[in-house]
Amino acid sequence: MEATDRMAAPSAGTARRERSGGRDGRRSSGRTSALPHRAAPYIVRNIPTYDILGEESLGRIEAAADRILAEIGIEFRDDPVALEHWKAAGADVDGLLVRFEPGMLREILKSAPPSFTQHARNPANSVEIGGKNVVFAPAYGSPFVMDLDKGRRYGTIEDFRNFIKLAQSSPWLHHSGGTICEPVDVPVNKRHLDMVYSHLKYSDRCFMGSVTAESRAEDNIEMARIVFGRDFVDRNCVILGNVNVNSPLVWDGTMTNALRAYARANQAAVIVPFILGGAMGPVTNAGAIAQSLAETMAGCALTQLERKGAPVIFGNFLSSMSLRSGSPTFGTPEPAIGSMVIGQLARRLNLPLRCAGNFSNSKLPDAQAMNEGTMSMLSAVHCGANFILHSAGFLDGLLSMSYEKFVMDADFCGALHSYLAGVVVDDNTLALDAFREVGVGKHFLGCAHTMENYQTAFWDSAIADNEPFEKWDIAGRTDAATRANARWKQMLADYQAPPMDPAIDEALVEFVDRTKAQMADAWY
Amino acid sequence: MEATDRMAAPSAGTARRERSGGRDGRRSSGRTSALPHRAAPYIVRNIPTYDILGEESLGRIEAAADRILAEIGIEFRDDPVALEHWKAAGADVDGLLVRFEPGMLREILKSAPPSFTQHARNPANSVEIGGKNVVFAPAYGSPFVMDLDKGRRYGTIEDFRNFIKLAQSSPWLHHSGGTICEPVDVPVNKRHLDMVYSHLKYSDRCFMGSVTAESRAEDNIEMARIVFGRDFVDRNCVILGNVNVNSPLVWDGTMTNALRAYARANQAAVIVPFILGGAMGPVTNAGAIAQSLAETMAGCALTQLERKGAPVIFGNFLSSMSLRSGSPTFGTPEPAIGSMVIGQLARRLNLPLRCAGNFSNSKLPDAQAMNEGTMSMLSAVHCGANFILHSAGFLDGLLSMSYEKFVMDADFCGALHSYLAGVVVDDNTLALDAFREVGVGKHFLGCAHTMENYQTAFWDSAIADNEPFEKWDIAGRTDAATRANARWKQMLADYQAPPMDPAIDEALVEFVDRTKAQMADAWY
Repeated sequence: MEATDRMAAPSAGTARRERSGGRDGRRSSGRTSALPHRAAPYIVRNIPTYDILGEESLGRIEAAADRILAEIGIEFRDDPVALEHWKAAGADVDGLLVRFEPGMLREILKSAPPSFTQHARNPANSVEIGGKNVVFAPAYGSPFVMDLDKGRRYGTIEDFRNFIKLAQSSPWLHHSGGTICEPVDVPVNKRHLDMVYSHLKYSDRCFMGSVTAESRAEDNIEMARIVFGRDFVDRNCVILGNVNVNSPLVWDGTMTNALRAYARANQAAVIVPFILGGAMGPVTNAGAIAQSLAETMAGCALTQLERKGAPVIFGNFLSSMSLRSGSPTFGTPEPAIGSMVIGQLARRLNLPLRCAGNFSNSKLPDAQAMNEGTMSMLSAVHCGANFILHSAGFLDGLLSMSYEKFVMDADFCGALHSYLAGVVVDDNTLALDAFREVGVGKHFLGCAHTMENYQTAFWDSAIADNEPFEKWDIAGRTDAATRANARWKQMLADYQAPPMDPAIDEALVEFVDRTKAQMADAWY
Repeated sequence: MEATDRMAAPSAGTARRERSGGRDGRRSSGRTSALPHRAAPYIVRNIPTYDILGEESLGRIEAAADRILAEIGIEFRDDPVALEHWKAAGADVDGLLVRFEPGMLREILKSAPPSFTQHARNPANSVEIGGKNVVFAPAYGSPFVMDLDKGRRYGTIEDFRNFIKLAQSSPWLHHSGGTICEPVDVPVNKRHLDMVYSHLKYSDRCFMGSVTAESRAEDNIEMARIVFGRDFVDRNCVILGNVNVNSPLVWDGTMTNALRAYARANQAAVIVPFILGGAMGPVTNAGAIAQSLAETMAGCALTQLERKGAPVIFGNFLSSMSLRSGSPTFGTPEPAIGSMVIGQLARRLNLPLRCAGNFSNSKLPDAQAMNEGTMSMLSAVHCGANFILHSAGFLDGLLSMSYEKFVMDADFCGALHSYLAGVVVDDNTLALDAFREVGVGKHFLGCAHTMENYQTAFWDSAIADNEPFEKWDIAGRTDAATRANARWKQMLADYQAPPMDPAIDEALVEFVDRTKAQMADAWY
């Protein structure tokens, strides 16, 4: 039952990866498993980040964040320990309000690792978060789910498990995520147990734990200890907790207590202000970015005060507003371009980055959904995000997890594997021999270079219809959503659970049952 | 009837722009016409290009292009004048095959302008092509059109005019385009007359002429002379011709004769290899890019041999292939990332760039269409393209012009106006006063900074539904395609023709009638 035993058996991981690749290949595309980008459990980007602002503008944003921190400050509610940490660190604590001298948080943040490994129970699926690495995780936090057959309804634990199975079955997602949807048929105070047990049981990838109470975070960390071993967990990151700032400029105790619980256990908090411009922050991008920087630096620094050297992810969630309805909007151009700046700022702090995702406000897996989602997701990969939460399933302004959009998005994550591989320039790809063989005015279809390279040359979507119109017509004139509907059902039918040590499973079930028995059901 | 008279009346242009903005505002969004990005007839980008390759890799691609040009060469068919030009310039001409010493084409290209103005008959709509400028033009060349009501059918002159009207009505397109769809109800040898007359009559923006025969190019240039005046046309660009390489490494006489006709008249050719990787070029991106560079340099240089200093646009069209069906694919990741390299290469040549567009292979305006289109279109704006043909309407692998996708794409072009405005960093956008006013834990909805900035803060789509689920539900649960269907019908109903001098109209009609009368109808 010790982690080290399982870590010594890399063949299991390799086997799973090959099985997953082969299965997907047979089912959908006839692809071989030879595609090189399928071999790795995450992406190592081969294109640079897209840096849109120069030194002077970045410096002005950082200076504005420093002034927000020094002149206005951040309130820390319901967490006396956090206030004690800030006092000890030399901040100006006035009641709940904490003000920070310019440079103070940057100094504290120097102890945070620029990159760290999150270990999966299958070591072949462990991911490196930071640097040039990109990890795709499902969307997080919707109360509803939807599909083309049944429309929108509240999520259940069955939906929750289904999405874990779909993520586990996709070669293009790298992480099992966290609260993929709210399982509203489980009491609120017990969900964290069923959710993390489901991640551990139905996936062998990395996952996220609860942040809705310090005790729940600690329960989830305890479950991780059962799987990985207590010593291993104390030395390594095996669970992430996604904590939100209560923007503007408030950290509430629920979040900071969870944040500190993860940090204390040497696990990684993801620090995320959700700023809807014009509501939780200024209506102008630069100000919202400065605020985001201030709030995130404070949260990240608090992890280091709790445990120096604990892994932490610099996160953010920029959003805009419809001027007509006042509704939040998602996947719009201003947050997309703002993400590029956030990426530059995170790199100047030398911290791993979480940014954007496949955002949309559409209520259907339609053209709006993929227009908004694609612009938003590309901003995430361009800005250099290392951990991309909300990579798959996000619809309805994060109120609904869509089965069809989930598999569309996962497919797009596959396309991004090819995109992030960039343009390789070497003798083979320059293909001068092919030009010599083919000459002028002939085609390259059968030439030696094409035969040697075609299997790995182009991304081959499992959702897109690339047939001629006539064949598409005869085949039933499907749209992408209809094909996605068939695909998620097939994926669930084909799903195979990853192997799990029965002793660990038993210990987890025992822990979950025992913990549940100690509490009456609570539904709010 | 002289251009100079009309050029002296800028108030007409201003009026049209305001009318268009106001009309659109009332119809769809309640926006005022105060949005700053609506004031200009094209975009001046405020974000840098996305340069993904370093000097060494770019140099290797350029060296490969040089070797293709020197060792393999390019065939120029059915155009003895072109061969004479090459001989006079010092190229190695062997029958139809022309080989070029490394550096020779680059030297010739130094006379091509890095940027030029294309003049519109309404001077307020003239566009600057090159530098930091971005011009969106409709898709080009589909034999079919489609809409949700009538499905796919051959395009007619009525469809052609409809798309001109839709483009003219959109504040987010900058150019009327060229062969928006093939008007198959008009004889092949007379289409160029009706098409260019329609552009001139129903739009007052810039447009493109025919390239399917030298005489047709010259007819279209003659029509431009009627509108702009002969001297004005000889001194200024008023018409573009989009000429395709017959890849790999063949220029056919139809295209080079049209290319030379435009250059001779001091009008701009757009030089475009269409390379479907694995068919018309190598299956690997670097080789296809090197080939594209070689073919485009040769075409651009030929314009300079015909008339030194003639404007020319460095174009390209990269595409990939489905490994399962052998079909061409559009809007896929490899061409999208390849575009970034093409952009870098064009800038090293100091030439205006045409690259990518809103590509898709989908047969419907669905999630696939906008996923592919968005990735492709973003690559065009990231790579620094100055003239983006295929910005709106492209479906079905360029076989069909879609009414619904046209208005969706035009709406996305609007979003790109906000995206390309970048993140402005100044005292107003940093909003420190707003933080002081609002403090911690309060919202920014009514604060002074929000009130001063909200009208121009966020892109407001006319297609996206950003209402809460319940309001969307009550309003009829529409998808984006259904909303786009209603929108293009409303836009056509609201369309108002731009004013045209009756004497010019009469002269154009007379020219078209006289030219048609000289030819029997030809249907192929």
